[in-house]
Amino acid sequence: MSGFLDARPRVGYFYTGKDSNQLIKEQVNKKIVKDYKAQPIVISESSSVYDGICTLFLEDVGTLFVVNNMGHLAGVVSRKDLLRAALGKQNLTDIPISIIMTRMPNIITCTAEESLLEAAKKLIDYQIDSLPVVRAVQNGNRTVFEVIGRVTKTTITKGFVEFGNEVTI
Amino acid sequence: MSGFLDARPRVGYFYTGKDSNQLIKEQVNKKIVKDYKAQPIVISESSSVYDGICTLFLEDVGTLFVVNNMGHLAGVVSRKDLLRAALGKQNLTDIPISIIMTRMPNIITCTAEESLLEAAKKLIDYQIDSLPVVRAVQNGNRTVFEVIGRVTKTTITKGFVEFGNEVTI
Repeated sequence: MSGFLDARPRVGYFYTGKDSNQLIKEQVNKKIVKDYKAQPIVISESSSVYDGICTLFLEDVGTLFVVNNMGHLAGVVSRKDLLRAALGKQNLTDIPISIIMTRMPNIITCTAEESLLEAAKKLIDYQIDSLPVVRAVQNGNRTVFEVIGRVTKTTITKGFVEFGNEVTI
Repeated sequence: MSGFLDARPRVGYFYTGKDSNQLIKEQVNKKIVKDYKAQPIVISESSSVYDGICTLFLEDVGTLFVVNNMGHLAGVVSRKDLLRAALGKQNLTDIPISIIMTRMPNIITCTAEESLLEAAKKLIDYQIDSLPVVRAVQNGNRTVFEVIGRVTKTTITKGFVEFGNEVTI
């Protein structure tokens, strides 16, 4: 039923010892990244900063994931990175996006199996807006990452709203 | 105690009729904007786009609130507004920020007394990153707004993490 009372044959209902704090924690921990992740917006490492800005507006996202020619995660570019680049005097079509991106292995990622709570903590702790959801792949003796989704503060905000609207146990 | 059981003199414990969904909803609704809002970062209406970009980086925020010479909310400028302006060929110190801002009355706001859930819903429904927390003030026969805080998706993400860490009733 509610999680507070449990039933045992020949005993009847008994108090499970959980208070509502614990139940809420359990509910929060049940939310898994794979059920909430959005589509990742990726751009090729060989694109220009100008291409990046266009993609950002066209796809209406805050962060782009940069992939190499094998399709593996190479970097992350934020709106602030693009804004900083746009302030310079250079022609934006001449600057490769790979120059301004945050590069592997300095990228904070999450997996589809992680809890949404773990992902939310990473967003806060590392002061970032977006996490690529990745799957590790062996490439010879190196581990590389395929991008299979994104978790942003928007994702978490939607999760929060869901709590207030309807929670199913 | 937990909210599920309540006590009455001479009766003992009884089931309150609330299930854990309802209790979680109650917990979510108890979070009020005033307990979570961050400092607003404001900029004068007479500033340039270049000033705006500098403030954005210096204060490390995603959205600036623009105030008029009376200190009342006049507009909102996002990273995307600034990025769009930076793509143009004009000198950014020559463009007034009031040209690129979203202007009152087209600004979605919230009050300090609203629930964090209401604020989160506005962020999702209107697809925005930040809400100014405002206080209405009468100025002659016009209602104007003072900016007293901000609620962003970061604020909501912190609220979500708090749920997973510790909830007090």
